[in-house]
Amino acid sequence: MKTGLGASTNTIGRLPKYLRCLQELEDQGISRVSSTGIAERLSLTPSQIRQDLAQFGSFGAQGYGYDVKLLANCIREILGINKSHNVIIVGVGSIGRALLTHLEFQGNNYHVVAGFDTDYGVIGKTVNDTPVYHVDELIDFLGEVDVDLCVLAVPKEHAKHTALSLAKNGVPAIWNLTNVDLELGNYDVLVENMHFLDSLFSLTFYLEATSKTKEKAFA
Amino acid sequence: MKTGLGASTNTIGRLPKYLRCLQELEDQGISRVSSTGIAERLSLTPSQIRQDLAQFGSFGAQGYGYDVKLLANCIREILGINKSHNVIIVGVGSIGRALLTHLEFQGNNYHVVAGFDTDYGVIGKTVNDTPVYHVDELIDFLGEVDVDLCVLAVPKEHAKHTALSLAKNGVPAIWNLTNVDLELGNYDVLVENMHFLDSLFSLTFYLEATSKTKEKAFA
Repeated sequence: MKTGLGASTNTIGRLPKYLRCLQELEDQGISRVSSTGIAERLSLTPSQIRQDLAQFGSFGAQGYGYDVKLLANCIREILGINKSHNVIIVGVGSIGRALLTHLEFQGNNYHVVAGFDTDYGVIGKTVNDTPVYHVDELIDFLGEVDVDLCVLAVPKEHAKHTALSLAKNGVPAIWNLTNVDLELGNYDVLVENMHFLDSLFSLTFYLEATSKTKEKAFA
Repeated sequence: MKTGLGASTNTIGRLPKYLRCLQELEDQGISRVSSTGIAERLSLTPSQIRQDLAQFGSFGAQGYGYDVKLLANCIREILGINKSHNVIIVGVGSIGRALLTHLEFQGNNYHVVAGFDTDYGVIGKTVNDTPVYHVDELIDFLGEVDVDLCVLAVPKEHAKHTALSLAKNGVPAIWNLTNVDLELGNYDVLVENMHFLDSLFSLTFYLEATSKTKEKAFA
């Protein structure tokens, strides 16, 4: 699919993988890598990587490869994660709280400015230095603070109306972890639906398929 | 990509989405749906859905559409999630614990038989009825209990050697949430790398791209 942004959704989907690979190389003190080197680590073809990167400019040199640090920075710039983003988390339950403490929001320029919940056990407290407010204060908050991105981690049954309220109040992007598909086509909001279980189910498919193949081989 | 299993990885990746859509329809009391009805809900084309499903057999009838419940059960069977699977969680930190309480493991026939950690704050306790043991007991445990799948949620720096130990001790599938790419090609183990941040980064790309487009429009 073409995105109208000069690169396909598949290409854009692969950029974070390239960045992750480059960060690991940096951690290992490796300063230069070929497209073949990246390809091997990610089970892709070198030409795929060269094609993807060529859509955004000219990186690396024939025979030399890529400067790991430089390419990582370029990809951060392409992804826009070199810029600072204000993030709120709506739904500070177990998943929301885990992300607050576990995800490297800060290291990636995501500034979690507030959490919102309905649970008085967490309201008025801070989680990982982030203040948590009652969800009733959300709309007022959005009127006062520029929020770039909302992590939506409320229970399933609250997903749709909460998302609608975020969209109506000008939140430009929702990272949706509720396992409900959100369709907000009528609003000026970007939604990324992230489905944990889809990935677990795919794995289960391959597990069952493999065990069937083994059964056949031993039959 | 062909999987050698009669269906492409893309098709298999879409099956959980179809199942999720059908489950939502069931929850809404809808018993019959056309490929167009599914397509609209998932922003796909009807022909894509018909092609995907045709790879696994003949479902639905021209002009009638699909029986929601029946098709959901068929997809559960194709994915293998109608069968019972024994699951362990290695790394019962915030993400591991959130998944234990949040994910619908039980409703999907995943039986979480044990958790493993190095933190004495959680060892010897139960989380959501699942007993948590010291990670030193893992290998003995694997010798005694048939484990189908391991949810790997240890800190980054322990990802590789823990995964290797799981593979060497016969765990057939690892659902890897460590944000480290695991390559265990030499072992007879399936690995599904699930990267939270990739999805957040893609969303950020679109957010930045959209705001650039808007800036241009107003320039």
